[in-house]
Amino acid sequence: MQTVKRPIDSSIMAQDTVLETPCPTLDVPPVTPGKPQVVIIGGGFGGLYAAQQLGRADVEVTLIDKRNFHLFQPLLYQVAMGGLSPGDIASPLRGVLSAQKNTRVLMGEVTDIDPEQQVVKLKDNRTIAYDNLIVATGMSHFYFGRDDWADVAPGLKTVEDALEMRRRIFAAFEKAENTSDPELKQSLLTFVIVGGGPTGVELAGSLAELAYHTLRNDFRDIDTTASRILLVEGMDRVLPPFPPELSARAQADLEKMGVQVMTKSLVTNIEGHEITLKQGDELTTLRAGTVLWAAGVRDPGMGGILADRTGAERDRSGRVMVSDDLSLPTHPNIFVVGDLAHFAHQENRPLPGVAPVAMQEGKYVARLIQKRLKGEATAPFEYKDTGSLAVIGRHAAVVNLPWAKLTGFPAWFVWLFVHIFYLIEFDNKLLVMTQWGANYFTRKQGSRLITEKVIEKVEVGAASSS
Amino acid sequence: MQTVKRPIDSSIMAQDTVLETPCPTLDVPPVTPGKPQVVIIGGGFGGLYAAQQLGRADVEVTLIDKRNFHLFQPLLYQVAMGGLSPGDIASPLRGVLSAQKNTRVLMGEVTDIDPEQQVVKLKDNRTIAYDNLIVATGMSHFYFGRDDWADVAPGLKTVEDALEMRRRIFAAFEKAENTSDPELKQSLLTFVIVGGGPTGVELAGSLAELAYHTLRNDFRDIDTTASRILLVEGMDRVLPPFPPELSARAQADLEKMGVQVMTKSLVTNIEGHEITLKQGDELTTLRAGTVLWAAGVRDPGMGGILADRTGAERDRSGRVMVSDDLSLPTHPNIFVVGDLAHFAHQENRPLPGVAPVAMQEGKYVARLIQKRLKGEATAPFEYKDTGSLAVIGRHAAVVNLPWAKLTGFPAWFVWLFVHIFYLIEFDNKLLVMTQWGANYFTRKQGSRLITEKVIEKVEVGAASSS
Repeated sequence: MQTVKRPIDSSIMAQDTVLETPCPTLDVPPVTPGKPQVVIIGGGFGGLYAAQQLGRADVEVTLIDKRNFHLFQPLLYQVAMGGLSPGDIASPLRGVLSAQKNTRVLMGEVTDIDPEQQVVKLKDNRTIAYDNLIVATGMSHFYFGRDDWADVAPGLKTVEDALEMRRRIFAAFEKAENTSDPELKQSLLTFVIVGGGPTGVELAGSLAELAYHTLRNDFRDIDTTASRILLVEGMDRVLPPFPPELSARAQADLEKMGVQVMTKSLVTNIEGHEITLKQGDELTTLRAGTVLWAAGVRDPGMGGILADRTGAERDRSGRVMVSDDLSLPTHPNIFVVGDLAHFAHQENRPLPGVAPVAMQEGKYVARLIQKRLKGEATAPFEYKDTGSLAVIGRHAAVVNLPWAKLTGFPAWFVWLFVHIFYLIEFDNKLLVMTQWGANYFTRKQGSRLITEKVIEKVEVGAASSS
Repeated sequence: MQTVKRPIDSSIMAQDTVLETPCPTLDVPPVTPGKPQVVIIGGGFGGLYAAQQLGRADVEVTLIDKRNFHLFQPLLYQVAMGGLSPGDIASPLRGVLSAQKNTRVLMGEVTDIDPEQQVVKLKDNRTIAYDNLIVATGMSHFYFGRDDWADVAPGLKTVEDALEMRRRIFAAFEKAENTSDPELKQSLLTFVIVGGGPTGVELAGSLAELAYHTLRNDFRDIDTTASRILLVEGMDRVLPPFPPELSARAQADLEKMGVQVMTKSLVTNIEGHEITLKQGDELTTLRAGTVLWAAGVRDPGMGGILADRTGAERDRSGRVMVSDDLSLPTHPNIFVVGDLAHFAHQENRPLPGVAPVAMQEGKYVARLIQKRLKGEATAPFEYKDTGSLAVIGRHAAVVNLPWAKLTGFPAWFVWLFVHIFYLIEFDNKLLVMTQWGANYFTRKQGSRLITEKVIEKVEVGAASSS
């Protein structure tokens, strides 16, 4: 039995403050000095695919992420609706990359980049040197300058976001069941989804499924099929990036499911649970127990750091303008991939912030780095449009392929197949398929737990009182 | 479009405070007046099995729970270890009971009972009248008067507890990887589990599996197989309720897996991350990054309310002493089932706080109420010992059946079969089996996400600033 003689210093070991140990700037040395160091910030689709592509390259790879898992974002709305558990759509980064001997994972938060010294700085004062840097930190949601709306209208980017949405949705039904005030009851059964892009459409469709089918026999005092679900979109149609005929079909499918679709409508105010909408010149105020935010993106910070340190230009949303090889014009050894990159594709519009773009960009940069090291010639990045898809409900989706447009059940089937296929790269495919199969036939949603509210962000290395 | 003309009153709709609407005491009327009202408090094994047994009885059933789901407690340790997701072992109470037309579920927190008026009072001022009351609120863990240890040594009763354990365990490995201080590294790789009952043994065994196998290739700077896992038990053997030879085998199995078992040892102090143990006269202090608490039970409050209102006697831990038909001696229409009941079984020791006891008690009381209503004769409760089991690791368990004692792989197989069988009553059996099958063969744990810390309890109907 080891007996510790040192005086007790509880602060040094306090939960969540371990890395706050007063320490000077500390270098994380390379495992194999002399090998070209590739540092990747962010373990989403862009960063992870870059890391995997470099798995057999003669480089050392360091993947840095604040979280210890990769998240399959396209299915996050299912977690919000209680159809899947977070564990079903997340894979531990260390597990995914454990077989890659040239790769290490660092859990930590990047706070700065020094392009002169070629080092990345972490919140806990550690520094990591790079020869090539891949920034893949993504975008967060944006309230168009009204950050005070965040409390009432949660967005959907993280696992915690999804669990918060889930908590609110199911708590709204419980509260409606519990109250005897009919007006309050109706307000609690009113759900507004802001933003008619793929996420908004998916949330609206699955919420309709939930209220009008899954829960219809579960309550005694309320009729969940009397719920009102409103999808608000500023443009003249839902799914603006899709061809107009697919948008029209998506809207028709949603309306058939019971969703009220309001296009050309903007949210002008949210106060308490009163939400004010503007459609043309008409202002409407309604009370909604639950408001879900699926509109707007902005750079959560890394784009700004890159711009400050390298002089890189950014677009209005904060995306970093990249050269045709996804590097910064001023720093050919710094690359930006995924949602944070603005690759001037056509008409100066960035590529959409979807998984296939990030995957292709991540792989491209990984190959480019290898070619450069071998002295081979490189070609500019070219996005290969593999199509886009959005799911609406149990049998309905829209799929826009370069060679075909699909709607209804065939589209839904393609959507399912594509998602299962990509999830296959992680280890949860069988489970998620089983879960979906079960949910599909029983219309049950097994994961509709109301768990406790998360109000404090705690990350390893982050300051926090314990 | 409905336009709300009422002045904006954000407080009335503020998230989580909806039920705080200033309202007078409010009765929840029976759905079918005139029918005998059975009110059940708590949706664990005791309460849920009672409700299900009453599904076709000519009574009206109201099941009240703070949470909206039933939790399959025996597998909660798997959630703590990242082997399962909360959704895998939880079933929404409304979903489980939706087909029972005579049953309603109320999400709310009981704050008082009035046995004179025969009403139950909820935190939000609502009252529910009962003819028969079944109290099945269970027990919580107990720090032997040292509640200040709770921050350092989380227990395992709720989903949030399990996620907090998971967060700490995986964060400890991440922090160990991140620090360059060898002493701190070793402390972070030291895990102490307090309590050698079934939960403690299960935690120790699965933690050994995690550290010595699952994670062994995932880190670059630490060797997870150098982790130290210490199981501390005050009695002279682990699994005290089991026959001595099974305890010995369990200890041997744990030691073979790498767990250091300390019996006849008490925790005398926890300060910061220094934990002091007393074995005989010898005091030992060691630094452990993670301390898990699996010792001690106490009444979380409902036992005290019952005692105050009815004069019911309680045992040292706060369990309510019940008659041989599980009712209160003074109030034959109030029953206590599950962990909270002290049914004087033999030598005045209560029945163990395990699922089979709660299930049998819940069913017994449900049948008793029906018999009484029909004027039939009733017999005292008799516990039918179906055996007890504890799992140790991937191939090891101990099973104590009335007619046989099993160890090793056969015991593990029985354990698996029994758990799957009972989980079958809920709808997750196939999933959990798939997950386990996958985990078993790959040794992977897909759900080892470090999610954010939960620091505030929010319940529907609970006061909370929004």
